Amino acid sequence: MDKVELLHGDGGKYTSQLIKEVFYNSYGNSILLEDLDSAVIKFQGEFMAFTTDSFIVKPIFFRGGDIGKLAICGTINDLTVSGAIPLYLSVGFIIEESFPISQLKNIALSMRNVCKETNVKIVTGDTKVVEKGSAEGIFINTSGVGIINGFKSKEIKDGDHILITGTIAEHGTAIAVDRYNLDVKGDIKSDCFPLCTLLSCLYKYKDKIKLMKDPTRGGIGEALNEIAIKSGLGVHLFESEIPIRKEVKWVNEMLGLDPLYLASEGRMLIVAENCVSKDIILDLKKTCNCNNASHIGVFTKECEFVYTENILGGKRILNPLDYHMLPRIC
Amino acid sequence: MDKVELLHGDGGKYTSQLIKEVFYNSYGNSILLEDLDSAVIKFQGEFMAFTTDSFIVKPIFFRGGDIGKLAICGTINDLTVSGAIPLYLSVGFIIEESFPISQLKNIALSMRNVCKETNVKIVTGDTKVVEKGSAEGIFINTSGVGIINGFKSKEIKDGDHILITGTIAEHGTAIAVDRYNLDVKGDIKSDCFPLCTLLSCLYKYKDKIKLMKDPTRGGIGEALNEIAIKSGLGVHLFESEIPIRKEVKWVNEMLGLDPLYLASEGRMLIVAENCVSKDIILDLKKTCNCNNASHIGVFTKECEFVYTENILGGKRILNPLDYHMLPRIC
Repeated sequence: MDKVELLHGDGGKYTSQLIKEVFYNSYGNSILLEDLDSAVIKFQGEFMAFTTDSFIVKPIFFRGGDIGKLAICGTINDLTVSGAIPLYLSVGFIIEESFPISQLKNIALSMRNVCKETNVKIVTGDTKVVEKGSAEGIFINTSGVGIINGFKSKEIKDGDHILITGTIAEHGTAIAVDRYNLDVKGDIKSDCFPLCTLLSCLYKYKDKIKLMKDPTRGGIGEALNEIAIKSGLGVHLFESEIPIRKEVKWVNEMLGLDPLYLASEGRMLIVAENCVSKDIILDLKKTCNCNNASHIGVFTKECEFVYTENILGGKRILNPLDYHMLPRIC
Repeated sequence: MDKVELLHGDGGKYTSQLIKEVFYNSYGNSILLEDLDSAVIKFQGEFMAFTTDSFIVKPIFFRGGDIGKLAICGTINDLTVSGAIPLYLSVGFIIEESFPISQLKNIALSMRNVCKETNVKIVTGDTKVVEKGSAEGIFINTSGVGIINGFKSKEIKDGDHILITGTIAEHGTAIAVDRYNLDVKGDIKSDCFPLCTLLSCLYKYKDKIKLMKDPTRGGIGEALNEIAIKSGLGVHLFESEIPIRKEVKWVNEMLGLDPLYLASEGRMLIVAENCVSKDIILDLKKTCNCNNASHIGVFTKECEFVYTENILGGKRILNPLDYHMLPRIC
């Protein structure tokens, strides 16, 4: 391919190829090449996490949130899963000429609300405007810094458990419903949520937690494939334990989408030693927004791929996807 | 106005109004409200600068640079004028479907070159792609962190000198020439340059330097008006001492543009005590890219506006502009 295609932006295989071929080849360095959700950098003897994300979600207002809430939660979550307490954010706006100021105010208020809830501060920003037709409504970049707080990625081993903090695929489903104006009954909305509120619950398990990851673009299917490849192990998922809301299942069946590959924006995958997984689940269930926390699978040396098994013993391999089904979900 | 207009993005009065009305009102805090080129934040007892900038320059390749070089220099310069040594950058790309990968590689190589020259590292990034027609070619956000290194803004007083590190208005002029496909003779190119390379030269004057500022959107006219308003003093500029290249003057006359309001992307305004200004100029002239450094004016309590005086004694007031002449220069 000699041109950038939509699939280069879906967070899967082609995104990864483009990043390696163009960006890592040009300006790679040992920190960038770690390829983590946040860079971990040393600053005056302390470790700091630093991350960035641009948001191009369509539509910009959707059930359960808007681009502002998403932009703040997204960067907070990237810092959180890197084991950092999010502290400070930057916000860069690119706004299309004639965008309604009333909508901009609503977006800013959504940002404010998440900041208030999490005690994270927006400390610097930038505002650019382009001519009508040169951008679609509004794009937002948020970057953030946080302090690493004792959490550290560890080698994943055979038998380590995989937990999820709640029901999956709700963000992707909400975006699909709103983008295609589907007339859907039932309470479907994005799960967009700042995960840093979970850190105090998880802190006491920090020595037994191997990895945290938010399954955004590509859902748990893509996220677990990435982790499996890096670990050299396979993943056995227990299909009946994966929490998915009924309405989400119906909509996905109707649209021919697979919820295992659809984004969540307020859930965390946790890989932990098996000795603590029950306790983590019990503690999570007492924590805001985690009452559906579940132990959904296990790492195994028996294979090198990701698969689900249903209660009848039927197995299905979850391959890394060549192309994700739903672009522009964040 | 109930819609965002192009003038909300030019870095002048309306940008400032929009930022205050929408963003500061929603999520203002003491650090954000300082309204500096970089936020100064405390991190583990040390002071750190943190800044962000989105780049929407048109055209993306121009004489003297491209959007990649500009994006790295721009954020390096925001950190530098905040008195920080730039250390780490993030890069967020929003790319329009069908953008040529060869061009993307050239942009990435430009970014690499500036990073190499300055020892600044790109440590984290994000890549998004939007459908053809949903963005214009490529937009880049860079955010950055640096360590504050002894430089500190100080109260500007009557008699303080204003220095510029080189010829002005070259970036804005280069963009105008390339955007409008002007058939211009002579060597006109952007002055886009990473200012952190000047810090070692300026370090020994740090206690006598009151302020550093890069005159980007709005040029020295807008930058000095901003500083004058904050200081409560006026500015007297010596017109004949303001370094402007002949070719830049000609092009601006032809286009009806005023170079005093056109962007530089590799120059720094320095406000310093008068006792050191001569020495600073002498040292700058030995520094790469500063051979046209000049003492261009003085702060005065005699008035509260910015004016230039020519060698015949003719005076002209430089008002803050309602609307800048050339959008999308960075």
